[in-house]
Amino acid sequence: MEIVKGGVTAAKGFEAASTAAGIKYQNRTDMALVYSQVPCVTAGTFTTNLVKAAPVKWDKQVVDSGKKSQAVIVNSGIANACTGAEGFGYCQETAKAAADCLQIDAEGVLIGSTGVIGKQMPIGKLTAGIEAMAGKKNSSLTNGTEAAKAIMTTDTCEKELAVTIQLGGRTVTLGGMAKGSGMIHPNMCTMLAFVTTDAVITKEALQKALSEDVTDTYNMISVDGDTSTNDTALLLANGMAENPLIEYGTEDYQEFKKALHVINEYLAKKIAGDGEGATALFEAKVVGADTKEQAKTLAKAIVCSNLTKAAIAGHDANWGRILCAMGYSGAQFDPEKVDLYFESKAGKIQIIENGAAVDYSEEEATKILSEPEVAAIADVKQGNQTAAAWGCDLTHGYIDINADYRS
Amino acid sequence: MEIVKGGVTAAKGFEAASTAAGIKYQNRTDMALVYSQVPCVTAGTFTTNLVKAAPVKWDKQVVDSGKKSQAVIVNSGIANACTGAEGFGYCQETAKAAADCLQIDAEGVLIGSTGVIGKQMPIGKLTAGIEAMAGKKNSSLTNGTEAAKAIMTTDTCEKELAVTIQLGGRTVTLGGMAKGSGMIHPNMCTMLAFVTTDAVITKEALQKALSEDVTDTYNMISVDGDTSTNDTALLLANGMAENPLIEYGTEDYQEFKKALHVINEYLAKKIAGDGEGATALFEAKVVGADTKEQAKTLAKAIVCSNLTKAAIAGHDANWGRILCAMGYSGAQFDPEKVDLYFESKAGKIQIIENGAAVDYSEEEATKILSEPEVAAIADVKQGNQTAAAWGCDLTHGYIDINADYRS
Repeated sequence: MEIVKGGVTAAKGFEAASTAAGIKYQNRTDMALVYSQVPCVTAGTFTTNLVKAAPVKWDKQVVDSGKKSQAVIVNSGIANACTGAEGFGYCQETAKAAADCLQIDAEGVLIGSTGVIGKQMPIGKLTAGIEAMAGKKNSSLTNGTEAAKAIMTTDTCEKELAVTIQLGGRTVTLGGMAKGSGMIHPNMCTMLAFVTTDAVITKEALQKALSEDVTDTYNMISVDGDTSTNDTALLLANGMAENPLIEYGTEDYQEFKKALHVINEYLAKKIAGDGEGATALFEAKVVGADTKEQAKTLAKAIVCSNLTKAAIAGHDANWGRILCAMGYSGAQFDPEKVDLYFESKAGKIQIIENGAAVDYSEEEATKILSEPEVAAIADVKQGNQTAAAWGCDLTHGYIDINADYRS
Repeated sequence: MEIVKGGVTAAKGFEAASTAAGIKYQNRTDMALVYSQVPCVTAGTFTTNLVKAAPVKWDKQVVDSGKKSQAVIVNSGIANACTGAEGFGYCQETAKAAADCLQIDAEGVLIGSTGVIGKQMPIGKLTAGIEAMAGKKNSSLTNGTEAAKAIMTTDTCEKELAVTIQLGGRTVTLGGMAKGSGMIHPNMCTMLAFVTTDAVITKEALQKALSEDVTDTYNMISVDGDTSTNDTALLLANGMAENPLIEYGTEDYQEFKKALHVINEYLAKKIAGDGEGATALFEAKVVGADTKEQAKTLAKAIVCSNLTKAAIAGHDANWGRILCAMGYSGAQFDPEKVDLYFESKAGKIQIIENGAAVDYSEEEATKILSEPEVAAIADVKQGNQTAAAWGCDLTHGYIDINADYRS
């Protein structure tokens, strides 16, 4: 496996474009198009929130139909959530406009929206944006990066990655982009993630690879505990790598899944580290758990604790809050057996042994916690299962962004 | 039922004292004593956190033993949590010191601690504090209020209330005090709440009244989603009102429970409104639910949503976040049937009808949301069950307090 340059346009036959459609933001791009020269086998996972945005309902229908898709239209600024039948109608109009401009089947157009909930789409601006993008789409890496920029809301940086693997003498490429900063507590998938690949693969294998991997990646991040109405992860495979067909459970499938995992984990961590107002990516790693499920529950409780996140913002080794969060997580463990460490580029330090503080240096702990990527490692000494979760610190920036997001 | 002045010393035979023991804070009181002239039937509910502070373990043992209690020793500054056998030993020493000073049974001494986790108690200061308090305890209302002040940590005001009811021709008084500001997401009971009464009542009736009522009061508040290691609610009844014995299920029991509810709800709301950094008490009321459980789940999800809490801080009628929180709560409802209102002293305004925005005035909504007590009312139109939950807004103050709480 090799990490290569680019994102959604890295794989063969994928093109992208972006445009400033003026949907909500001014003076920046706010629409992206991802297009494949040939129809794609498509997998998707969606929010478990009972309140599902119109584009989530639309995409689920497309993915469930089993038909191939060929384009994704994404906009930032308005989420098209809580918009009723009118909002869903705009999805149909969007798909139709894209189909006309791109000369493809409207049932093969996927849609992603992110932004404020409850506002209706200015559909004229949206269709004008599609027309503009259809005229300038291409397969350059630059266009892929520009697409990743166009889908940002409160994100501070674009998020993309591409990798290649060798299958049956052919180079298979996977590339993805994602956005997400606030309302991030995915449950089945994250805010918006789009991964493209030129692999030849069955729909079953593609969906299983995605569904299995999101539980260890996007579903293990949290910025604020709020599971969005719009969470969507889409995986498009257009087959242009001409590798032998990848079927579920084979060696090639495992190889493909490993590559997909690299992309998903990278994008998930990028989303967590770029959480609204965040100054640090905060990883919680639980080792020595009885079961994987228990390890995950504990790790996620740690990164979700507001008190722990505020302590990380203050570079404060306030380990009591971590033990407290583990205690209310619902997972079973013996608090008096827990060892806890903090780790970053600046070093690793043990803070707790068997549930009580060791004689550590607060100064050194603060130094370790002052890095832009910090980890807490809890050993519950019960078995050999491990899990990691990712979040960020809770800062004044989060309040600034969210006390007045709509205006 | 009548609301009267005072708190824990309002009921007959209860005395209180406070002192500056210098446990962690300087220049303020940090220990409180509540004492009854005669032994009390005692009820308690405690945190469900797997990590239980030493005083929680101690008190549970006292309450479960069925023996009567006669004094409560509370300190602020150090929580005595994650302190192992040494920490539990300090509870024994505390009880013994109190028993010696007060000439009572050590097994009838209850203990409450709140503050930083993981630090050991300076037991010498604690026992000196007990001695000082034993010498100045009395039944004045002032001493009760001073006790409520001494147990504060990041609280900005003391929290106490007392009520009287008439039972069998006798006046029965209940009075309580509580503290809580951060790490507030009680599950079985709140941070620290102490209610005293001179009622004659069986232990069964006393425990059931408390256990049943905490689920509608302390368990329905949240400041930050972090369930503390120290949550404790204690209810002491010394029988000095000489009313006919209150037994479970009788009319007198119902009357007693109503009075207890007034105190618990008041203290719970005071804790929520005094959440760390809070500028507003935020109430979520769900009406028209199928079941009480569903109404509670929905109400609690709303007050726990960081995004909603930040919007309340910004006086922003960002209703999409409320619907989003309801959607991921786990409760079943039809998003397209929901009506939503905001209400405060400044008025009431409808924002959503059947899941979509009505044409409301943002200006008026902002005015309503600029009051120190604001409510969101969601009607899910399924049945006739209702529930309320209380929280607060999420502000810069919360970050200030928690990014550097230990220093």
